Amino acid sequence: MTTEFTSHHLTEAVVDSIEATADPRLRELLAALTRHLHAFARESRLTQQEWERAIGFLTATGQTCTDTRQEFVLLSDVLGVSMLVETINSDGRAGATESTVLGPFHMTESPVRELGANIDLVGGGEPCVVSGRVLSRNGTPLPGTVVDVWQANDQGFYDVQQPEVQPPGNGRGLFTADAEGRFWFRTCVPSPYPIPTDGPVGDLLRATARHPYRPAHIHFIASAVGHTPVTTHIFVAGSDHLDSDAVFAVKPSLVQDFTTTDDPSLAREFGIPNPFRHARFDLVLNPA
Amino acid sequence: MTTEFTSHHLTEAVVDSIEATADPRLRELLAALTRHLHAFARESRLTQQEWERAIGFLTATGQTCTDTRQEFVLLSDVLGVSMLVETINSDGRAGATESTVLGPFHMTESPVRELGANIDLVGGGEPCVVSGRVLSRNGTPLPGTVVDVWQANDQGFYDVQQPEVQPPGNGRGLFTADAEGRFWFRTCVPSPYPIPTDGPVGDLLRATARHPYRPAHIHFIASAVGHTPVTTHIFVAGSDHLDSDAVFAVKPSLVQDFTTTDDPSLAREFGIPNPFRHARFDLVLNPA
Repeated sequence: MTTEFTSHHLTEAVVDSIEATADPRLRELLAALTRHLHAFARESRLTQQEWERAIGFLTATGQTCTDTRQEFVLLSDVLGVSMLVETINSDGRAGATESTVLGPFHMTESPVRELGANIDLVGGGEPCVVSGRVLSRNGTPLPGTVVDVWQANDQGFYDVQQPEVQPPGNGRGLFTADAEGRFWFRTCVPSPYPIPTDGPVGDLLRATARHPYRPAHIHFIASAVGHTPVTTHIFVAGSDHLDSDAVFAVKPSLVQDFTTTDDPSLAREFGIPNPFRHARFDLVLNPA
Repeated sequence: MTTEFTSHHLTEAVVDSIEATADPRLRELLAALTRHLHAFARESRLTQQEWERAIGFLTATGQTCTDTRQEFVLLSDVLGVSMLVETINSDGRAGATESTVLGPFHMTESPVRELGANIDLVGGGEPCVVSGRVLSRNGTPLPGTVVDVWQANDQGFYDVQQPEVQPPGNGRGLFTADAEGRFWFRTCVPSPYPIPTDGPVGDLLRATARHPYRPAHIHFIASAVGHTPVTTHIFVAGSDHLDSDAVFAVKPSLVQDFTTTDDPSLAREFGIPNPFRHARFDLVLNPA
């Protein structure tokens, strides 16, 4: 009996052992996972020492998780699995705004704000207006759409990361589109930032000579009655790291110009110092 | 751009991102792992909710680990990965005693004992003698081989699991083979036992309608000068669960008769009540 035969026999023994699983989807997922995990070990001729090191890494990853930190989500992010799962499940959304990962910073509720409000409660960054419409795929405006927004400040930190510098809710807002489906708010231009690197995922990035940066972006979740909600970002055109996002979340359609605008009357209308940066884009939702 | 194309493109982007990894073996392993993990998600059409549940399971597994409990090793065991890695790395050992998993109970050092000593310090089980020789693959005896032995008691518990009932070192012994390579010791016949089921791995076994039992066995590590050590078990022929070991570690060559022996003079020689059970087998090592 060859080792190769024995190892395939072992894989099938594991798959057979879960035959009586009550939930057929769980059985399907575990069988597929077992086959791929075993194929990985077999093809790589994984050694005992390597597997022990992997077990140690997974253990440390679990033990780094707290109520406010999810190191396994971060691991999933840097291995592209979060974005892959997102992509797999975005079938049939053609024509609508593309989605991307939720990320780990949607952990507090955004404060309800009036259209036009400034979500930059601290100041110091480059003044910016974000405006657009929420539309159904056929172009019909979607009044009353709830638009949840969150972003890092111009130094690359979210409010929850800098409680001593930023008040809670800085960089966050929950807006409701007007009767024509329009939304607009003031903010500062966000900055690229590194994902947390003081845990096992940081060790992994260093061992693989990868940088931890995400290009500058603003997060959105748009939810309208009768439509599938979309979770997405817009990325600042020209930002560093657009071609090497640490979590692989950039889609070309989501990169937006933050145009430098010199228009005193428009500035007055938005209540922002002239000149200012202006990002204009529409959120397009699919009927549910 | 189809979702299928995008998702494959994403996989290659992750593999490309680790191109500059200094350790070529780490790069190879991570590339293979990424490809298999992504293929698993793609083929299964893994949903966000399913992936979140998986992340929760992995987090709980990491957080169940302590200084004396390794739930990720247990997970690896019940998915057959520990045994697979063991099998992959046992190539070229033909003719020697087959190896099997170390298991999680080799956590304390076995006490040094004289040949013939009784490792059952409590009594109550069925009296038993284990005897045999340690040989090199060509049949040459290997005097002085260190034979490390550990087993559960007749109730299915190791000493470390029952500190209130079993003294430390119960069921354990570190023996040295004599001038003819022989080893022998007294014990009780071990019992099948369940792996720990009060953590995430227990939840997984219940969800997949699997029992947690291992068939009755005695662990060995044999280490001789100039030879590759072997880590193995012997299994009690006729034990329950021989065909459904929760950790997939049974190999037919390791199943041994524990023969009921009615031989007063032999019993006297071993210092054991007559009749007794007797397991006889040789440990065969490969030259290093």
